[in-house]
Amino acid sequence: MVEVATRLFADHGYHATGVAEIGRAAGLRSGALYYHIGSKEELLFDVLRGHLEEMRDNEEAIAASEADPVEKLRNLIASHTRTIATRKDEVKIWVRDAEALTGERARELQEIRERIQEAWRTVFAEGARTGQFRTADHALVSGALGLVNNLYMWYQPAGQMTTDQLSALFADMLIDGVRAPSRPARAARTRATKQPNRSRRGG
Amino acid sequence: MVEVATRLFADHGYHATGVAEIGRAAGLRSGALYYHIGSKEELLFDVLRGHLEEMRDNEEAIAASEADPVEKLRNLIASHTRTIATRKDEVKIWVRDAEALTGERARELQEIRERIQEAWRTVFAEGARTGQFRTADHALVSGALGLVNNLYMWYQPAGQMTTDQLSALFADMLIDGVRAPSRPARAARTRATKQPNRSRRGG
Repeated sequence: MVEVATRLFADHGYHATGVAEIGRAAGLRSGALYYHIGSKEELLFDVLRGHLEEMRDNEEAIAASEADPVEKLRNLIASHTRTIATRKDEVKIWVRDAEALTGERARELQEIRERIQEAWRTVFAEGARTGQFRTADHALVSGALGLVNNLYMWYQPAGQMTTDQLSALFADMLIDGVRAPSRPARAARTRATKQPNRSRRGG
Repeated sequence: MVEVATRLFADHGYHATGVAEIGRAAGLRSGALYYHIGSKEELLFDVLRGHLEEMRDNEEAIAASEADPVEKLRNLIASHTRTIATRKDEVKIWVRDAEALTGERARELQEIRERIQEAWRTVFAEGARTGQFRTADHALVSGALGLVNNLYMWYQPAGQMTTDQLSALFADMLIDGVRAPSRPARAARTRATKQPNRSRRGG
């Protein structure tokens, strides 16, 4: 039922999809309809809950792990990318139709979302504290999450790049930026040529 | 008319907003309605065209400018951030309701969107060619645009951070990453202490 509703909501939008249509697509006789489908809003809640709970569970575990903050951020990006890439329909419905949720259901999903953000904030704050990150500004956290969240709009999992390659690319960009080793760092290395320098990542 | 439609589409969604409602909110008498509003889809097109044309014009000019690729990327991020931050309603409608556009109108906006992406791709490719950027992978371009586009969901222009501060933060993150100067770069600088090193950005 949730799978059927996910497909219909993603293709036609929540508001344009009727309960009867979902029932038909799921092969329910009309008498069984309201027994299996409490309400359309409840179905929307069930559709949206899955990917958010998956992210919350995985990402809270990463934040609480023993890894280094840089490694944790890399793991968060990988985990979040994987969920978004494999659940593009749910993300699309979330972005477009989550406003249709009310009361307790809206609050519950909002709380899951805040816990996901909190996991990321914790890792950024830890990296700033250890001196491994330059900053832990909350706009960085929102920006980083936005970067990954947004891929539901353009990423084709069957395309040129695997999800793992994509998340590695994002991690490199967010952690080290797109700039090639800068001239001052090169100059510093050049001045220090008497010493071996095995690191490819000096800048 | 476009302002009224933007507000109503943003607040209630395109599909839930009727032409008569827009006319009433704009103070039109019902006789004048269809004279001033060709069709709801045409209104949606006019609502969405503005921010996309603004981004295309500004960002193509930046890509064609004489600046350094790093400076161009910084300018693209600033310009795109400014448009998204001041036109959050249009972006919200774009993300949620652009699929309602058909035929020539859909094609026209899609073409504007591709020209925006092309401006970014050009700058990334130029920076990779000059050796200033490590890579110009198309997923980087989509990721960078996604990061800025997504801010319509969370950024409050009246909040703690101005649009200029936000775009500077994004530019720092995308260009240099969140990692503090790395140990190898520090070690290289330490080994080179006989030479003055005035750069704070060695890594």
